[in-house]
Amino acid sequence: MADFELIKSLARKTDTKIVLLVMDGLGGIPHPKTLRTELEDAQTDNLDRLARASQTGLSIPVAHGITPGSGPGHLALFGYDPIKYLIGRGILEALGLDMDVRDGDVAARGNFCTIGEDGTITDRRAGRISTDINRELAQRLNDIKLDNARPIVASGREHRLAIIFRPEDGGPQLSDALTDSDPQREGLAPLEVTSSEILGQNTADIVNSFLKVAMSVIADAHPANGLVLRGFATIPNLPQMSDVYALNPAAIAAYPMYRGLAKLVGMNVIQTGDTIDQQIETARENWNAHDFFFIHYKYTDSTGEDGDYDAKVAAIEQLDQALPALLDLDPDVLIVAGDHSTPSAMAAHSWHPVPVMIRSRHIAAGFSEGFTERECAKGMLGTMAATDIIPLALANAGKLDKFGA
Amino acid sequence: MADFELIKSLARKTDTKIVLLVMDGLGGIPHPKTLRTELEDAQTDNLDRLARASQTGLSIPVAHGITPGSGPGHLALFGYDPIKYLIGRGILEALGLDMDVRDGDVAARGNFCTIGEDGTITDRRAGRISTDINRELAQRLNDIKLDNARPIVASGREHRLAIIFRPEDGGPQLSDALTDSDPQREGLAPLEVTSSEILGQNTADIVNSFLKVAMSVIADAHPANGLVLRGFATIPNLPQMSDVYALNPAAIAAYPMYRGLAKLVGMNVIQTGDTIDQQIETARENWNAHDFFFIHYKYTDSTGEDGDYDAKVAAIEQLDQALPALLDLDPDVLIVAGDHSTPSAMAAHSWHPVPVMIRSRHIAAGFSEGFTERECAKGMLGTMAATDIIPLALANAGKLDKFGA
Repeated sequence: MADFELIKSLARKTDTKIVLLVMDGLGGIPHPKTLRTELEDAQTDNLDRLARASQTGLSIPVAHGITPGSGPGHLALFGYDPIKYLIGRGILEALGLDMDVRDGDVAARGNFCTIGEDGTITDRRAGRISTDINRELAQRLNDIKLDNARPIVASGREHRLAIIFRPEDGGPQLSDALTDSDPQREGLAPLEVTSSEILGQNTADIVNSFLKVAMSVIADAHPANGLVLRGFATIPNLPQMSDVYALNPAAIAAYPMYRGLAKLVGMNVIQTGDTIDQQIETARENWNAHDFFFIHYKYTDSTGEDGDYDAKVAAIEQLDQALPALLDLDPDVLIVAGDHSTPSAMAAHSWHPVPVMIRSRHIAAGFSEGFTERECAKGMLGTMAATDIIPLALANAGKLDKFGA
Repeated sequence: MADFELIKSLARKTDTKIVLLVMDGLGGIPHPKTLRTELEDAQTDNLDRLARASQTGLSIPVAHGITPGSGPGHLALFGYDPIKYLIGRGILEALGLDMDVRDGDVAARGNFCTIGEDGTITDRRAGRISTDINRELAQRLNDIKLDNARPIVASGREHRLAIIFRPEDGGPQLSDALTDSDPQREGLAPLEVTSSEILGQNTADIVNSFLKVAMSVIADAHPANGLVLRGFATIPNLPQMSDVYALNPAAIAAYPMYRGLAKLVGMNVIQTGDTIDQQIETARENWNAHDFFFIHYKYTDSTGEDGDYDAKVAAIEQLDQALPALLDLDPDVLIVAGDHSTPSAMAAHSWHPVPVMIRSRHIAAGFSEGFTERECAKGMLGTMAATDIIPLALANAGKLDKFGA
């Protein structure tokens, strides 16, 4: 993998355009009931035709055997070493709930839980309360006032929530070097939040005083009469794509977390609709304003996570139907990739290398008959690091100067 | 990639012989007019037969997407990490003009240029003066005497030149931590050379005083009445192949730059002719004196850079005709490789992986029907780092001991 210093020294601005279409959780493994993968079963005339005209391969998001979360999976696709650049769980959760996370904020994931009479946790998920009840309780938490920071709570599904502690203007800086209050087991009481760093002690005090007040304002809300937090994190200081790649990148994503991830690497997040057709229309409307478009398609992942083979096949076919509108934009470089595999046979993310194809005028095609795991394994790109996709895209777009004389 | 410490600890001298035949700029992409690459179009019965009996693959000189210059491309083929070991532009230019560059020399690239009445550059290439005029002017520059260093100028083509500043015996050491005098744009005056390092200030003074005298001795030579320098560099301190690989290597190259590169890594540069037949004859004559032969074939690159598809096809066929004489030498390990791709469709170096084949008695063949990009993509070596070629060659030649018990 070429490092950022090298890429930055070679990157140059041009008028050419790159589209990175990410089919989340794209890859699969043969399903016991069909012995085929979802990509192999799906009717994908457009993707298959594109594969025959593209350079194909399999991409490894992090390393052989490593199953990535959405953060590392996307960072790798954006060309960032996902082991070097980490995004904390609290930040990802806050981004996923569309919170406006700012520099200096400390974010955490939280659960409403059930606290028994002896003060220990009897149900870590508070009986999976309804999202409506969650919203009502979160509102109570949002009304809490603290001395040195502002707590901002966002409801997730069922018992889940995210919280941001935002420093007050002129108030002390906050630290994310904090231990979890969530003991991660039932039968234990919520833990005091502590910090191993002197600068974090003040933040631990703020969080503990928040938790104390929070427990009192929801004390009557059994089974959701408790709250635990974990994964405290601040926004990582990520290199910006404009700086490293000399790109003016845009993100077109229906789901908040991916908009948030894109924003962290400096993409301009454009408002769009919920369907891939609307997303491609958004790309068309903004075609002249950017030279790089990240388009995120969620449904291949969510159906895979549901373990729903047929639904994942259908999600792939839906993307396939939308593809001609994207091809009509005629990007100089078109990449179709995935952030990781989500085989419906596993109903989870997995470590399996992910099909990838790159179309430009500077490639040799003819290896893959279609866009599937097994066909892409025959491709000229071979099995490659996902972090190499962006350098290849830049090269194919004529955006990288020669290295050395 | 195995590091030098490991390789060095395992390398042992044997009587086996390795030939590394480098077809410069070997790789290509399908040309719009034929939809085939030059290798696919060329009649190469000998190369194809060799490919069927070899281990084949595609090599990546630096990293996916990175287009290498000749320096990084060759260092990688010699097994040197091309990002770690850099060769400055001034050194490459001087080597390319067959200058005898020594430790301690500071070399730079230069242009004759046209200076207007207001002292600014009106033509960075001095109207591309003839090489003859260049030679006459370079002679004037070679007559300049300095107090603390000797300037040595070599003419390139048209307006180009290289210059070496050589320290005087007992005089001060010179530094290459110098800024360019070339502003790289017309409408600006040549710049003072400066140094950010204390030890470089003395060298900057020497270069500036040279440039002042130089401008006066060519003041009457309009349009070549000015001179700008850039890319100051000293010889990098490269590990020597004899030390790292326990080889006694020889270089047989018709072009000066490649002889120079080979010398930097410790090869014995043997005088040879301009044709590949003469080069192979040189190898035959020196067969007993060395255990490693680097044979450099230039014309696949120069024709590619010219954008001349037919000429590149012809250059490949010419090499193919010469191959039997090389096979007659019966090296224990024969590698045919390229330092980078130079598709004639792009008329430039490119980032595309380069076909490579390794023949020895210790390989499994049968993957590639011929020696082309697409056939080598099917090979057992896969898509590999070019820096791994030499370790593989050493292993196949029985020159690497087992690692660990």
